Amino acid sequence: MHPFTRHHADSVSALGEEKLIAAIRRWLGTASPRAPFGIGDDCAVLPVARGRQLITVDPVIYGRHFDDSVPPRAVGAKLLKRNLSDLAAMGGRPTAAVLALTLDARVSRKWLEQFYRGLAACARHYGVPIVGGDVAQADGIIAASLTLLGEARGRRIVTRTGARVGDAIYVTGQLGGSLRSGHHYRFTPRLAEGTWLARQAGVRAMMDVSDGLAKDLRALTPPGAAPALPPGSLSLRPGCTVAAALSDGEDYELVFAVAARTDLARFERAWKRAFPRTQLTCIGRFIAAKKLPPGVVDLDKFHGYEHLKQLPRS
Amino acid sequence: MHPFTRHHADSVSALGEEKLIAAIRRWLGTASPRAPFGIGDDCAVLPVARGRQLITVDPVIYGRHFDDSVPPRAVGAKLLKRNLSDLAAMGGRPTAAVLALTLDARVSRKWLEQFYRGLAACARHYGVPIVGGDVAQADGIIAASLTLLGEARGRRIVTRTGARVGDAIYVTGQLGGSLRSGHHYRFTPRLAEGTWLARQAGVRAMMDVSDGLAKDLRALTPPGAAPALPPGSLSLRPGCTVAAALSDGEDYELVFAVAARTDLARFERAWKRAFPRTQLTCIGRFIAAKKLPPGVVDLDKFHGYEHLKQLPRS
Repeated sequence: MHPFTRHHADSVSALGEEKLIAAIRRWLGTASPRAPFGIGDDCAVLPVARGRQLITVDPVIYGRHFDDSVPPRAVGAKLLKRNLSDLAAMGGRPTAAVLALTLDARVSRKWLEQFYRGLAACARHYGVPIVGGDVAQADGIIAASLTLLGEARGRRIVTRTGARVGDAIYVTGQLGGSLRSGHHYRFTPRLAEGTWLARQAGVRAMMDVSDGLAKDLRALTPPGAAPALPPGSLSLRPGCTVAAALSDGEDYELVFAVAARTDLARFERAWKRAFPRTQLTCIGRFIAAKKLPPGVVDLDKFHGYEHLKQLPRS
Repeated sequence: MHPFTRHHADSVSALGEEKLIAAIRRWLGTASPRAPFGIGDDCAVLPVARGRQLITVDPVIYGRHFDDSVPPRAVGAKLLKRNLSDLAAMGGRPTAAVLALTLDARVSRKWLEQFYRGLAACARHYGVPIVGGDVAQADGIIAASLTLLGEARGRRIVTRTGARVGDAIYVTGQLGGSLRSGHHYRFTPRLAEGTWLARQAGVRAMMDVSDGLAKDLRALTPPGAAPALPPGSLSLRPGCTVAAALSDGEDYELVFAVAARTDLARFERAWKRAFPRTQLTCIGRFIAAKKLPPGVVDLDKFHGYEHLKQLPRS
């Protein structure tokens, strides 16, 4: 669905701000509590947090994260799910979200209604109250930025730092071809998996795969080490090459390091009991960089998705 | 300073994402703690909150909230101060912030560095750690959206709801001419005043004046009531008309209702002791709408700033 309309009467600018905000509250429905715990005051009052609090922010932008082929309801859901995936990577559960919307005055009300209804349905599904927001105007753009709050109730928070030489590297699900297959908006964030993994003592470091494994894995790699991935170890989405699995991005899977001393067979059996439908693949190990054996995947050949890297424009 | 450059080498796209994020961390300096309490992981871990937690989100957008006449350092500071003003209106103190930046690849590095350095200086001044963020690309735009977290340590949180017929209406500072005078980026958010007011039992409702008093005051007005403002009661910025004071917007002052039974002379003396340099003006009272006397300011004649309300475009 194309988000812009040529007919002023169908556009958000025909509504004006006050009616638009009233409409947004209607579209969000029970996903947005009443003020002061939701939209309608200078700030929103947050629910009381029980564990350590986490925060993350990620946008969806027209032409970057979605186009006319993505249903607007799915765009709204994708916005929340992208952030939930970041929370999953720290073993957190969501508690609340706020949304900053920047949009052209010619955006169609129909498109925007579906966007908010999709966001609201997703927010209800994952139990995330949308407690606040802002709507601002800018020409030629639709950009929505969501700030997600969460909590980690376990004894520890798993970060990207902590992997060591010898640790096994695991990835959930399949990689590659996210745009082509529609996975980039149909994915399910690995929230339950993330909180389970954060409780396993052997899991030393974790992150989500969003810019392509080749790029993201660098952030998980301890100093002086390198990931040794045997060819054929990756779990590819049907029809995908290894290059696609390493570079495409928007996989929204979890990649994590498990301590060398862990009984991996036992760990994998426990995973299967907990998540019989989520694939788990050991893709290799971190080894000392100078000991990298021949024949492993050369990650330097793959760059993943680098934002803002463009050829000069005239 | 114009934020776009014609020379690719001077643009953010010449840096690419990874170097840009490294530069941003350098520009933010001590305003951004180390991961996991700052930038660098999937989420940031928030400082432990002591009171009830508040959240608000507000952007600055090129062409809307700033133009080439506003120094980029002041743009960065304005972004944080706008949000601090919302927090002040609920009697809160800031605890942390995250920033979502959407920008054209042709934005100049110099402009962006000054923007971040201005934000960082302001964040240090108000003790607000910038704990996370996101940078995304979109054509022809510079939009920065900041989500601010805060806490209200007092026994209660003052909201927009709670004023009653008979209550006196007060406004801090002066109104009008914010754009012309540069007040829209030079203002000081009324944080100390807001927390002080939240502790005064007589203060029933409060908000900040951002879209013009005529519009904002409606949100503070209890059902069935109307604000009766005698002509000449408003505190005008030098050179401003009453119409400008009611409609211009971006005043970032506090407007609040004080219970009728309060000893107002005593309240005003206490204010003067606490804030000898912040002007305080009683601009009128809420009275029953049907009893509105002749001669008071007719607020329906003034509309304030309505976002997204435009004439149809061809």
